[in-house]
Amino acid sequence: MAQDERTWEAGERRRLQLLTWPDIEEYLQSSRSILIPIGSTEQHGPTGLLGTDALCPEVLSRGIAARTGALIAPTLSIGMAQHHLGFPGSISLRPSTLIAVVRDVVTSLASQGFERFFFVNGHGGNIATLQAAFSEIHADVSYGMQSNRPSLQFQLHSWWMMPSVRARSAELFGEAEGSHVTCSEVSLTHFAHGPHMKSRPLSPKIAPKGPIGDSRDFRSRFPDGRIGSDPTLANAEAGETLYEAALEDLCAAWEEFAKTA
Amino acid sequence: MAQDERTWEAGERRRLQLLTWPDIEEYLQSSRSILIPIGSTEQHGPTGLLGTDALCPEVLSRGIAARTGALIAPTLSIGMAQHHLGFPGSISLRPSTLIAVVRDVVTSLASQGFERFFFVNGHGGNIATLQAAFSEIHADVSYGMQSNRPSLQFQLHSWWMMPSVRARSAELFGEAEGSHVTCSEVSLTHFAHGPHMKSRPLSPKIAPKGPIGDSRDFRSRFPDGRIGSDPTLANAEAGETLYEAALEDLCAAWEEFAKTA
Amino acid sequence: MAQDERTWEAGERRRLQLLTWPDIEEYLQSSRSILIPIGSTEQHGPTGLLGTDALCPEVLSRGIAARTGALIAPTLSIGMAQHHLGFPGSISLRPSTLIAVVRDVVTSLASQGFERFFFVNGHGGNIATLQAAFSEIHADVSYGMQSNRPSLQFQLHSWWMMPSVRARSAELFGEAEGSHVTCSEVSLTHFAHGPHMKSRPLSPKIAPKGPIGDSRDFRSRFPDGRIGSDPTLANAEAGETLYEAALEDLCAAWEEFAKTA
Amino acid sequence: MAQDERTWEAGERRRLQLLTWPDIEEYLQSSRSILIPIGSTEQHGPTGLLGTDALCPEVLSRGIAARTGALIAPTLSIGMAQHHLGFPGSISLRPSTLIAVVRDVVTSLASQGFERFFFVNGHGGNIATLQAAFSEIHADVSYGMQSNRPSLQFQLHSWWMMPSVRARSAELFGEAEGSHVTCSEVSLTHFAHGPHMKSRPLSPKIAPKGPIGDSRDFRSRFPDGRIGSDPTLANAEAGETLYEAALEDLCAAWEEFAKTA
Amino acid sequence: MAQDERTWEAGERRRLQLLTWPDIEEYLQSSRSILIPIGSTEQHGPTGLLGTDALCPEVLSRGIAARTGALIAPTLSIGMAQHHLGFPGSISLRPSTLIAVVRDVVTSLASQGFERFFFVNGHGGNIATLQAAFSEIHADVSYGMQSNRPSLQFQLHSWWMMPSVRARSAELFGEAEGSHVTCSEVSLTHFAHGPHMKSRPLSPKIAPKGPIGDSRDFRSRFPDGRIGSDPTLANAEAGETLYEAALEDLCAAWEEFAKTA
Amino acid sequence: MAQDERTWEAGERRRLQLLTWPDIEEYLQSSRSILIPIGSTEQHGPTGLLGTDALCPEVLSRGIAARTGALIAPTLSIGMAQHHLGFPGSISLRPSTLIAVVRDVVTSLASQGFERFFFVNGHGGNIATLQAAFSEIHADVSYGMQSNRPSLQFQLHSWWMMPSVRARSAELFGEAEGSHVTCSEVSLTHFAHGPHMKSRPLSPKIAPKGPIGDSRDFRSRFPDGRIGSDPTLANAEAGETLYEAALEDLCAAWEEFAKTA
Repeated sequence: MAQDERTWEAGERRRLQLLTWPDIEEYLQSSRSILIPIGSTEQHGPTGLLGTDALCPEVLSRGIAARTGALIAPTLSIGMAQHHLGFPGSISLRPSTLIAVVRDVVTSLASQGFERFFFVNGHGGNIATLQAAFSEIHADVSYGMQSNRPSLQFQLHSWWMMPSVRARSAELFGEAEGSHVTCSEVSLTHFAHGPHMKSRPLSPKIAPKGPIGDSRDFRSRFPDGRIGSDPTLANAEAGETLYEAALEDLCAAWEEFAKTA
Repeated sequence: MAQDERTWEAGERRRLQLLTWPDIEEYLQSSRSILIPIGSTEQHGPTGLLGTDALCPEVLSRGIAARTGALIAPTLSIGMAQHHLGFPGSISLRPSTLIAVVRDVVTSLASQGFERFFFVNGHGGNIATLQAAFSEIHADVSYGMQSNRPSLQFQLHSWWMMPSVRARSAELFGEAEGSHVTCSEVSLTHFAHGPHMKSRPLSPKIAPKGPIGDSRDFRSRFPDGRIGSDPTLANAEAGETLYEAALEDLCAAWEEFAKTA
Repeated sequence: MAQDERTWEAGERRRLQLLTWPDIEEYLQSSRSILIPIGSTEQHGPTGLLGTDALCPEVLSRGIAARTGALIAPTLSIGMAQHHLGFPGSISLRPSTLIAVVRDVVTSLASQGFERFFFVNGHGGNIATLQAAFSEIHADVSYGMQSNRPSLQFQLHSWWMMPSVRARSAELFGEAEGSHVTCSEVSLTHFAHGPHMKSRPLSPKIAPKGPIGDSRDFRSRFPDGRIGSDPTLANAEAGETLYEAALEDLCAAWEEFAKTA
Repeated sequence: MAQDERTWEAGERRRLQLLTWPDIEEYLQSSRSILIPIGSTEQHGPTGLLGTDALCPEVLSRGIAARTGALIAPTLSIGMAQHHLGFPGSISLRPSTLIAVVRDVVTSLASQGFERFFFVNGHGGNIATLQAAFSEIHADVSYGMQSNRPSLQFQLHSWWMMPSVRARSAELFGEAEGSHVTCSEVSLTHFAHGPHMKSRPLSPKIAPKGPIGDSRDFRSRFPDGRIGSDPTLANAEAGETLYEAALEDLCAAWEEFAKTA
Repeated sequence: MAQDERTWEAGERRRLQLLTWPDIEEYLQSSRSILIPIGSTEQHGPTGLLGTDALCPEVLSRGIAARTGALIAPTLSIGMAQHHLGFPGSISLRPSTLIAVVRDVVTSLASQGFERFFFVNGHGGNIATLQAAFSEIHADVSYGMQSNRPSLQFQLHSWWMMPSVRARSAELFGEAEGSHVTCSEVSLTHFAHGPHMKSRPLSPKIAPKGPIGDSRDFRSRFPDGRIGSDPTLANAEAGETLYEAALEDLCAAWEEFAKTA
Repeated sequence: MAQDERTWEAGERRRLQLLTWPDIEEYLQSSRSILIPIGSTEQHGPTGLLGTDALCPEVLSRGIAARTGALIAPTLSIGMAQHHLGFPGSISLRPSTLIAVVRDVVTSLASQGFERFFFVNGHGGNIATLQAAFSEIHADVSYGMQSNRPSLQFQLHSWWMMPSVRARSAELFGEAEGSHVTCSEVSLTHFAHGPHMKSRPLSPKIAPKGPIGDSRDFRSRFPDGRIGSDPTLANAEAGETLYEAALEDLCAAWEEFAKTA
């Protein structure tokens, strides 16, 4: 079980980083839309990869782009993960910093003609800050400060919340899915980065649940980093199933969003 | 149909603004929790009050406090409403400003011993920014900057999303509820501020739906300010039903939250 | 002795929060001016209300509006009160936060056509920061950043410094007036919110005086929170006298300011 | 008529910039106080120097230091003068920038043991922002963020508002003093920087008065930059009189402030 | 000519994103050092990849890690490139944003025990801002704000400025190297990402030189984006030579830096 | 040996602070360029003046202006010197603060027609932050925020790095020059401010070298504040030689820069 090399390569060819400025100038002739993968770098329990939340939107973005021709911006691989800082290797931006980053990325591209921004997100902790960032960007126009700028459009899709993914995930893992270090995300990294996966004993089998506060509180509630999940159930085959489910919904959403421009 | 005066008065007596510092010192002997009403000042269509989103959590806070003894902080009556600025009278804080306000309010109270903050929210547009603000506050501890501060706990309850309210609202208004200038919020202001309500013809009967962007985009999609609603169905009697439904859930949530301290 | 209900109600009807956006659109046909009450939430000694500095401009604003038709923005009830944080219940914004709040409130309203902002202030600690905020807002035009925006005008009136109030206050209380938890402000809250007033023994009778620094320094210089005052002299009758004195000057100032637009 | 060279030189020897770090280490053995001259660089009408507001506190600081041994920090020669930007050569910091500058200067010195900061100010437009800056600095302690720092003390003396200066100024110039490009400040620069003074015809003789807004508004109200003054009356002899009056009060204030440490 | 697969894979295994938190906890037992690749996403002429400046430090980081065991943080692939925004596809952070990002990344890792940060940089425009960021981070300790934090150490290595690279580059390309879209960086991307390279006619053969200002000024001086270079000379064989030269110096620098911990 | 009085006086007459707004209006008829001296206030070892880094660009600016007619802005005498804060008397702005200061100074002058800014710098620690500040200013145009503003041009000349100075310095002092409290800068202050110089025994004769971190790290590596220098070799005669060498290069650079406007 492993990711299809041809799809990956086709996706790679849609990465802005692997294109030239005349390529983008040409793309803008027919589209005002861009796909921005955003994730996080944070602990995923004793066996999950620290990069899980960035790696998942990266592999999905390649798939979307291979099928739809979407242009892929560089992955924003560090997100808002202050609650995970108690575990070594977790890296977080403050919400105010992430807002500034998103504002600068979007206004860079908007100054060149992009108007529609489609975020593929891998981390729940990013959602609130991203929505705040969109409002912060809109505010420039809303307060009359940048009234000659076109109105920008944003969509934020958290891959694990797409209906098709939720349906598959419920069938595959039921209650053991959990809400951090989920079986689904670990499965998707097995599918995409199989050779890197670790195996370590996990105890208890299903991790505890509870509210999320600061990093000190988090580590005391969730000693090994998992919340409510049993990621030993994760596997590459399930990862492929979820990959296909996510692509189905995400490609449809992109097509709908991008055609409006 | 009108709000019960005695309940209102009992709630008023729980307002921090109408107490003295020795009263608060005494309160802190037995509780580390405080209730913070947060709303917005923004257009609510041709007939809804500009203050609707602040007035609703204010009246509910009085009710909660009258029944549970909760301490009520001053209402934060201006929220994040940049998308409404195209309509006169709407006032908004940028997300970055609202984050700073919430940080200062919370750290003021935390410096005196408060540890648990229960927000009763009246505006959907505040949710993302409030959650970002909580993370911004937690980050001080999570980065090791304020490691001698106790871990703070936050809960955010948007009154119209409480299960009992949703159930009543669906029964009362069905599809006509909409998502801005909802029948429910207008009903609640009828119940609490009846004499101020306006009547103007609305057309179309049910307002259009769609995504929310900047204020220019908003006004062109939703010409009279409503989204998906027919607030002519609103009435004080429904308002009282919803008030009771909301209190039922909110009082239970407060009791659970406050007992943990 | 109690506040006149009809005046209060007439004032309530001039609150932006209790109006609709078409009401404001209509108001803007004949006026570019708005009244903004601003206060603070901070200790007022063992017997004064924590909300004193917001409650006073609130009641005065209702009076001004009842007599002049001024439009009243939502009260900014949390101000710059860092020096009071040593007493439980005090809540402060940092100067930089309050500047951002005032900037956002003013630019929200300016984007809709308001040009003249009349602040009725209840707290000495707000004055410097408000004036800095006005300059921060002016700077956008002065540096050539927002050159297409009309020039905005600000007036800041601290009610206790109006000449008529100072004259009455000197007659009524002489030296016992003090400079924090003054007899005047406590009297005005007796007049407006009588039922909430507390009585506790105060010692010494007249509180000490001195410079204001950080909250630690403040609490050690002024152990019960008062500065130079003996608020046991306060009473509702004096409050009514001061209320009338303040309205006399404030209504005249509003009429002069608002007619220029 | 010219400034006394020996006093100037004695003052120069108290400038931090002309001392070494062991000199300051030794000074801190016996004093925790420092004098900070702060001014502005802004138009002073057709004949007044752009640097007037910084040059005045500079010369006064040399005098204070010569007589009292005070240590003089570098002059902050650019202040908050957004309203003057319509006249070439005016330079302003935004209030938020000046707050950051004052915070950094003060916390630099506080980290080495300074606790008492005596500002000699030459510009009315700085006053509000400086007071806001002091509160911003105090807030670090007041919110419990830097609780191990000693409480800092600030005094702000605007030289032209010292009682002795006001008395002399009223005798010398009466109504013609005005409020910008005053006879007093121009006289003091004649005394201190005589050779640089310009003579140009001024019309009207006494400039208009009025409120201060943004730079566009300012230039239209005050076409040549003066407010209410007739600086043709200024002269070096008056400058010396005012210099002595200012020193009398400022030296007394410094002695009182610095002895407390 | 292509990059060695085994070296790449060995480097991949040193990426923090592909490890788990217990792996990092173990790493911290023997090292306090981490390698952070930082680049930019900006136009590289008609034929160079937009991601060149991030792709180069990425491939070099894998090489360094494969040979030394260094731990690799996620690539910061968007840098300070405001001057390139006139060309579609360029994305920039403001200097103030990049400072915030670096501060958050470093303080995240420092809270877990990292003390030594080795940046491998691919973009000249990042250098000043990165050095400013290091000072901003140090300032927390220097002002006495975070005095219980260990002193952090930073090194910044711009790969094309390493002595061995400069020597090889001068031999290979002489004057045609240029200063943007250099033959060296294009060669290194040929070596690492060969299949993606474009070929388009370039005119003039060697691009003009000049100072760098804002994006409008940049595009008018350098119409196709190159500065002083003829990247048609670039090739994968030269890329491999430069890769080996860079690794030689960078591995030595890392070994020296990391052993000090 | 002492500085030529006539040159100094001629330079003084070119200081913006000693001119009037009509003088600047006239200057702008023929030039869009201005010279901004920038320094630092920081320890310069047991014998060097704390103001060395500001005093040097000040005296050089007078010389440049006397010879070329350049207009001199007020000296920015406090720079980015966080690493020196461990020595009493050092004062620093954070990089983010210095960026804001430079932005405000430049945009003040740009709003009046200045377009070319020539910084004469006295402190190595300022260089990175100044370059970041220039990019921050350019970004307003580059992101399309201030597109109607002319493109601004910046040059930054650190006087001790001018080729003629480096040549003279190498001849005069060789290895003993060092990199902080250099023989050259101390010589220049002897030449310009001779009477203030101190003599104290220094040990070791040549100070140690090493990397620069936070202030705590700095003081432990460089106990008396010097880095690699033996400033006992400094003298006024060498100062004059270096002054002439610097002026030669700086005047040529100014002439070239200013003629382009």
